[in-house]
Amino acid sequence: MKSVLDYIDANRDRFVDELVEWVRIPSVSSEPARAPDVRANADHLAAHLRGLGAGRIEVWPTAGHPAVFAEWLRAPGKPTLLVYGHHDVQPVDPLGEWITPPFEPAVREGRLWGRGVVDDKGQVYVHAKAVEAFVRTAGAPPINLKLLVEGEEEVGSVNLDALMREHTADLAADFVCVSDTAMFGRGIPSLCVGLRGLAYVEVFVDGPAFDLHSGSFGGGVANPVNALAKMIASLHDADGRVTVTGFYDDVRPLTATERAEIASLPFDEKAWLASTGAPATVGEKGYSTLERIWARPTLDCCGIGGGFQGEGAKTIIPARVSAKVSCRLVPDQDPDDVMRKLGEHLRRIAPPGVRVRVETLHGARPYLAPTDHPVYEVAKRAFSKAFGKPTVFMREGGSIPFVRTIADATGKPCLLMGFGQPDENAHAPNEWLDLSNYHLGIKSAAHLYDEIAHMGESGGKSG
Amino acid sequence: MKSVLDYIDANRDRFVDELVEWVRIPSVSSEPARAPDVRANADHLAAHLRGLGAGRIEVWPTAGHPAVFAEWLRAPGKPTLLVYGHHDVQPVDPLGEWITPPFEPAVREGRLWGRGVVDDKGQVYVHAKAVEAFVRTAGAPPINLKLLVEGEEEVGSVNLDALMREHTADLAADFVCVSDTAMFGRGIPSLCVGLRGLAYVEVFVDGPAFDLHSGSFGGGVANPVNALAKMIASLHDADGRVTVTGFYDDVRPLTATERAEIASLPFDEKAWLASTGAPATVGEKGYSTLERIWARPTLDCCGIGGGFQGEGAKTIIPARVSAKVSCRLVPDQDPDDVMRKLGEHLRRIAPPGVRVRVETLHGARPYLAPTDHPVYEVAKRAFSKAFGKPTVFMREGGSIPFVRTIADATGKPCLLMGFGQPDENAHAPNEWLDLSNYHLGIKSAAHLYDEIAHMGESGGKSG
Repeated sequence: MKSVLDYIDANRDRFVDELVEWVRIPSVSSEPARAPDVRANADHLAAHLRGLGAGRIEVWPTAGHPAVFAEWLRAPGKPTLLVYGHHDVQPVDPLGEWITPPFEPAVREGRLWGRGVVDDKGQVYVHAKAVEAFVRTAGAPPINLKLLVEGEEEVGSVNLDALMREHTADLAADFVCVSDTAMFGRGIPSLCVGLRGLAYVEVFVDGPAFDLHSGSFGGGVANPVNALAKMIASLHDADGRVTVTGFYDDVRPLTATERAEIASLPFDEKAWLASTGAPATVGEKGYSTLERIWARPTLDCCGIGGGFQGEGAKTIIPARVSAKVSCRLVPDQDPDDVMRKLGEHLRRIAPPGVRVRVETLHGARPYLAPTDHPVYEVAKRAFSKAFGKPTVFMREGGSIPFVRTIADATGKPCLLMGFGQPDENAHAPNEWLDLSNYHLGIKSAAHLYDEIAHMGESGGKSG
Repeated sequence: MKSVLDYIDANRDRFVDELVEWVRIPSVSSEPARAPDVRANADHLAAHLRGLGAGRIEVWPTAGHPAVFAEWLRAPGKPTLLVYGHHDVQPVDPLGEWITPPFEPAVREGRLWGRGVVDDKGQVYVHAKAVEAFVRTAGAPPINLKLLVEGEEEVGSVNLDALMREHTADLAADFVCVSDTAMFGRGIPSLCVGLRGLAYVEVFVDGPAFDLHSGSFGGGVANPVNALAKMIASLHDADGRVTVTGFYDDVRPLTATERAEIASLPFDEKAWLASTGAPATVGEKGYSTLERIWARPTLDCCGIGGGFQGEGAKTIIPARVSAKVSCRLVPDQDPDDVMRKLGEHLRRIAPPGVRVRVETLHGARPYLAPTDHPVYEVAKRAFSKAFGKPTVFMREGGSIPFVRTIADATGKPCLLMGFGQPDENAHAPNEWLDLSNYHLGIKSAAHLYDEIAHMGESGGKSG
């Protein structure tokens, strides 16, 4: 490994220059006019990988933007690792807020600034450059490697599932590594081992056939806004627990180990709260804030609207009101099951004098990594070696749809090994990549390949 | 009286023709371009009254549209009655829904169709034609009469208060009669003796400084929509009573007599409910629907809005939500007092983790006629004589701001003697006036003047 690490050190600046070249291509997948750029972007990556000794490099078409596939299968008997990344980027609006133009990457304060530097081009290059270091010093990576870089992550990975089914054999692997997430805190190597799911419905409450004069009719018929408020208020008990019948049936309780791991993290709750602007942390009784946002299910109204919302005072009993109700799910809750229970519950608690209709909008399954598999200890060790600090397990309160797609399609352990920072502006103006993270990320990937190559040998390569 | 009533019968058709001429003038007070029409409309009325022997006729300018004033003071020693009406009309949109053009009045099915026929030109002419009948048959009305016809009722009577203060002496009277309301049901002579007031506030609930990702933050901070729902839900108890501290302090309970009067009305609750399209009547326990909409205070949300209200599923914890909260008030509730109590209550019940702000929008005082004054029995009798049916006391659940303005400015008993029908489309397309009501209304006004002229005489003129 010494020559590999030396190579990474020696080529540190060039690795940045090469990333800069790629970031110049405005591969915004959500803008139809940018489709040729997304295509050129895939071609640029493929051409770049072509120089790194891959046995096979292909640009795979999809119904939308193309994906890039590359493989290095020169370690017979060794495990195969599938690395996932994406080459498309977020839109840049509002453009006026960028300090330097999004597609003219600039280095300031030890950071590279530009659209896509961390989400996800820099993280794709972390692996490309680790591969390069092995290829140039040892001829090939020490494990069998497959790289899948899709072009539609920022538009919901809409064709990823079809692509993976089409290429099941091509993508066969023992483990999967996804580098598209952020670390828990600055310089803290982190593996994300859990994602919450989603159950999202809209509830419509109808009263009179049209807005009524609140003077002539007020007191005579039910007011849909008051009725919906009553319904929503009843969805939590005094301890902040969700009251929907059967809601917790499939919730896997946090183990003592998981709770201890979460408690051990250097979480600055005060700073976290300040970042929200909210006056206090609030939530389910008996759980810490991190537990609540990562590993407990929730029910939140994402929006509500009905009746008169203009300036001043219009005196009506509104005919209708509706609310968007979203639940974050944890293992082993099933979104379809929760949406069904939520719909039944909402219809059951409808107050007299209104009609309730529930529409199912969107579901996503939660994810929990099989952390008892030895590859997680291997990944932790590799990551720690590069950063010189213990690796932590963390979770993410949101959903990452492609992770479930990949985990389900492969059925293999998935390592969410991200090199971003929590405040990297991934979807906002002035996205940045910490260049030290980029450098240590490349070393982390190199260590990961090396550690996986030695999996099963007694004691691994620790120490 | 016989000659007066005969005159009214003999001139029945001409009275309609004359009303038609006046209705042709499009006196829409809310449209600035119609200001010359409103002025012409006032002049038309003044010219018409000039032929009816008034001692004084003036067009009074205001900061907005002019009012018309006329007086007949030829009954020394007799009471003075101030009659209020308005000569401006509602807009006509949507014009396409009118069967015949709004300003080309047409007679169909015993009704006169056109904008302003019942609200309020027809009701102003009810009095003008009753006066005419006395002038032509007896030389003058049997009481002293003052007629005030304002031009801004449909835009909130914004200058009425100033006008009445400016002309306090001109408008001095013993009683006031307002003919601008509808009857309880077809052919049922009705005096409106109560109006509800209004206390209207807007409540703003703020949580995070900006919309948060509901995945990353859900469970960590309070959700303003859920918090507001909880607050609104708590504003009623299980019996439908308002829980705002002190809300009922000044509510004058309905007397047994008042409840009996209301219960005796031929109220078709099924038809009333059908007209709303709501599935059931709902409200405060222990009171009938008529009692609830006329004589009990209420709390209704007129609108609510916050967070994502578009199509589909956006996963946020909204930064803010707000609701319009309106209370209908009954005697002796004071709008300022209720708005203060409501504001304090809302701030007090704010759940943890949100900030609550309450803005006062609009207040109106309730009105209850002093029905123990003998003039109400006199008016009942006059009305019954014309229609051949007992006169009922009714109330109106809404507020009529000018009634409070007039009642407060004069300090005199106010007779709300309306000749409209409940379904007359006063503010909608195809406004109509029942021509039989118009005719009997003229006779009712004549009987009212005659009965008032004999007030205090033993036994009145009943029988």
